[in-house]
Amino acid sequence: MTYPPTPPRAADALLADLRRDLPRTALSTGPEATAPYAADLPHARTNSHGGTPVGSRPDGAPLAVVHPANTDHVRTTLRRAHALRVPVVPRGAGTWPDGGANARADSVVLDLSRMNRILDLDPHEQIAVVEPGVITAELDRAAGEFGLRYAPDPAGTAIFTVGGNIATNAGGLRCVKYGATRDTVLGLDVVLADGTAIRTGRHTVKGVTGYDLTALLIGSEGTLGVITAATVRLRPPPEATATVAASFATFAEGTEAVSALTAARLEPSMAELLDGPVLAAVDDAQGTDLRSRGGALLLLQCDGRSAAAEAEWAVSLLRKRATSVETTTDPAEADRLLTARRLALPSLERLGRVLIEDIAVPRTQLAAAVREIAAIAERRGVRIFTFAHAADGNLHPILVLDPDTPGIPEAAWHAAGDIFTTALRLGGTLTGEHGVGTLKRNWLAQELGHEQHALQQRIKAAFDPHRILNPGKAL
Amino acid sequence: MTYPPTPPRAADALLADLRRDLPRTALSTGPEATAPYAADLPHARTNSHGGTPVGSRPDGAPLAVVHPANTDHVRTTLRRAHALRVPVVPRGAGTWPDGGANARADSVVLDLSRMNRILDLDPHEQIAVVEPGVITAELDRAAGEFGLRYAPDPAGTAIFTVGGNIATNAGGLRCVKYGATRDTVLGLDVVLADGTAIRTGRHTVKGVTGYDLTALLIGSEGTLGVITAATVRLRPPPEATATVAASFATFAEGTEAVSALTAARLEPSMAELLDGPVLAAVDDAQGTDLRSRGGALLLLQCDGRSAAAEAEWAVSLLRKRATSVETTTDPAEADRLLTARRLALPSLERLGRVLIEDIAVPRTQLAAAVREIAAIAERRGVRIFTFAHAADGNLHPILVLDPDTPGIPEAAWHAAGDIFTTALRLGGTLTGEHGVGTLKRNWLAQELGHEQHALQQRIKAAFDPHRILNPGKAL
Repeated sequence: MTYPPTPPRAADALLADLRRDLPRTALSTGPEATAPYAADLPHARTNSHGGTPVGSRPDGAPLAVVHPANTDHVRTTLRRAHALRVPVVPRGAGTWPDGGANARADSVVLDLSRMNRILDLDPHEQIAVVEPGVITAELDRAAGEFGLRYAPDPAGTAIFTVGGNIATNAGGLRCVKYGATRDTVLGLDVVLADGTAIRTGRHTVKGVTGYDLTALLIGSEGTLGVITAATVRLRPPPEATATVAASFATFAEGTEAVSALTAARLEPSMAELLDGPVLAAVDDAQGTDLRSRGGALLLLQCDGRSAAAEAEWAVSLLRKRATSVETTTDPAEADRLLTARRLALPSLERLGRVLIEDIAVPRTQLAAAVREIAAIAERRGVRIFTFAHAADGNLHPILVLDPDTPGIPEAAWHAAGDIFTTALRLGGTLTGEHGVGTLKRNWLAQELGHEQHALQQRIKAAFDPHRILNPGKAL
Repeated sequence: MTYPPTPPRAADALLADLRRDLPRTALSTGPEATAPYAADLPHARTNSHGGTPVGSRPDGAPLAVVHPANTDHVRTTLRRAHALRVPVVPRGAGTWPDGGANARADSVVLDLSRMNRILDLDPHEQIAVVEPGVITAELDRAAGEFGLRYAPDPAGTAIFTVGGNIATNAGGLRCVKYGATRDTVLGLDVVLADGTAIRTGRHTVKGVTGYDLTALLIGSEGTLGVITAATVRLRPPPEATATVAASFATFAEGTEAVSALTAARLEPSMAELLDGPVLAAVDDAQGTDLRSRGGALLLLQCDGRSAAAEAEWAVSLLRKRATSVETTTDPAEADRLLTARRLALPSLERLGRVLIEDIAVPRTQLAAAVREIAAIAERRGVRIFTFAHAADGNLHPILVLDPDTPGIPEAAWHAAGDIFTTALRLGGTLTGEHGVGTLKRNWLAQELGHEQHALQQRIKAAFDPHRILNPGKAL
């Protein structure tokens, strides 16, 4: 699907409309003001995992940036853009690694970061209603004042927005036990492409009326509508958390240990597995000695009232394979054990520019996937480092590129393609939690099949007949 | 939206096609063979809660019943019906109370009960792939052989099919902790209205590629496609379960007790609340003395490693309000305590024909909803008995009608309408778990709003442009 460029006359007419209908503070024009909105991550130093991605291929500074203060500003912008067939690119914090908020030179960016109010937080109902620009960590903090939490924790909540997390159905370290963003959002206020406002889902904990448009919109990457408010579920935090760090000779032994935990019916709240090259990079950057303990490090958490007992059980199972095991229920000590995971990406960034991939495979295929990735790195002459949300089969192979060569070399594109092909061949999927964005569109039809891809295009048309919303993304 | 009748010529042509293209055993024609498929529940004595509903308004015996043995039979049927514009009504066990499988005289029923194989059960991946006609309890039993379970437990798993549970996003007693059917289904094999086969979702535990058509199809009541296989997640069962039965002077005190548990951040796996009239009906039918202990009975379960400790905590909170409290970790004793819930509907059935409603309200509005329902019963002169999945605000008001008067009297329709209006006014929803079916269509647009209703119709058209699939249901 190609998207025709906006005729200059339509662009001029839209700018005139927006100048007339929006307050001056809600509109930025001119290349200096709009250039920072051309691509994901112009300001933020870090992305979801702490790295600066290079996968974006922006087309240039957008026509204008609208900074809506309320739903009416969003409706006005979309109504006029729809009438004039001008593309609109919704944007939260712009921190996503897959180019999902990249603009086009002939598009308008809708910067939702100023719609950042927590509209309601009901501790009895355990529900919050928030605007899309609320920082995810701030919602969690506000919930914490009532002894609750916002369960999803994509690994960058301090910079992510709730709206962006919803648009990408963000996962995170805890989602193996508590689910991804989709499992937490009950209802959405959405403005459709033509400016129509709808409210999907519900404000009750339970309900099934009509087609589940809430679930459809979550993860649609701004291509079906613009979220102006979300009703989300809050949860009590666990009474206790226990942390385990275990080293293994090889990544394959680490995955077998995780399989043994799953087979024993243990349900950890986190199970992160780092490969040997990642550990070596952390050691080099931070002066630790993780690599000397083994070729893979597993970081595990159990939570709830029985956290300590479950962790002890896990340790007894891990001891059969591990080269070393440590465990703690002390938060400060847990933080120390988790340092390797937290510093993995910043450590890799010192080696070059990072390109973060995100595949998911059946849990039984994790070791096979890592073997294949190593072979791809060898064959393509690209450095690849891998860590995994191991308990749900989600792998992040990270390509580290020469910092002095601009753009993405052909070898890296080929390696990324090989990784996607491998994921599909092992019965997996192209993206475990980051979404499709622009990077993976070529492979999407292959995963979905022609008929389903056509159906998804028809659904897109039901929401956005002129295809103005975030063109070229997701589908 | 009205649906034109099928011209006799199209009906004849379709029957000729099906006779030619399907094996003889896969096709039933003639009024004697097809009459039992005119409405929900022709054979089954009980519905989801053990009662025989009267809400169905069938139009007469269908043209034909197809009993597909495989996906090809489904594709053949739909391809021909689509070409000839003949309505097709998919059907599982036909046990749902809201008329979702009622046929029309000019439609073909697709009886999926013979597609009942468990195609795969992978205990390592904790995933099963099943055909739609598999009985829900049989899937749970098969998972149990590997120390796993199928978590959703709509209160009629012994007669429900997995396909029917998916089509209605069935809830159940455990879903307060483990989620409804939508939270358990990972992917679907679906035949679209024109006979196209697609595979949605994934066979990995995690993944976000493309729009979430799996979630959209779940709960769509057979109006978007026909499910021919489902990939579902299995879970380890809890290590232990503790059961609490507490009586209260009034239903309002019972709801306050449940609110106190929620405020204390307790997360029970079941919280059923029965009102005084229900208890009196159970006493009359079963010779128990529940009503004498109070005007409401709460049946609570906690599960997991800390089940007993959590139940003790719950008991300490409930004692402040309850007129009596019992607790046990013994399965047989638990069964005894749960008898009232299990026998509630059969006991009400002795009093007349039951019409089961299903609304959900914010948890804080439960007591208000029950008060309003009592007022409606008084005003409309209809007997209404209520029980609730209290921890998630889902209420089942049950209208008991005169057994000797056929059909549904006007007063009952008015009472049902008043109940729906009350649910919406209290910030709730028309259906917590049973779906819209035919009974609630009049109220659907009111809950969704005109714009969203129009959008849902466009989505329907993207799947089923000639609107042949289960016409008149869900939307």
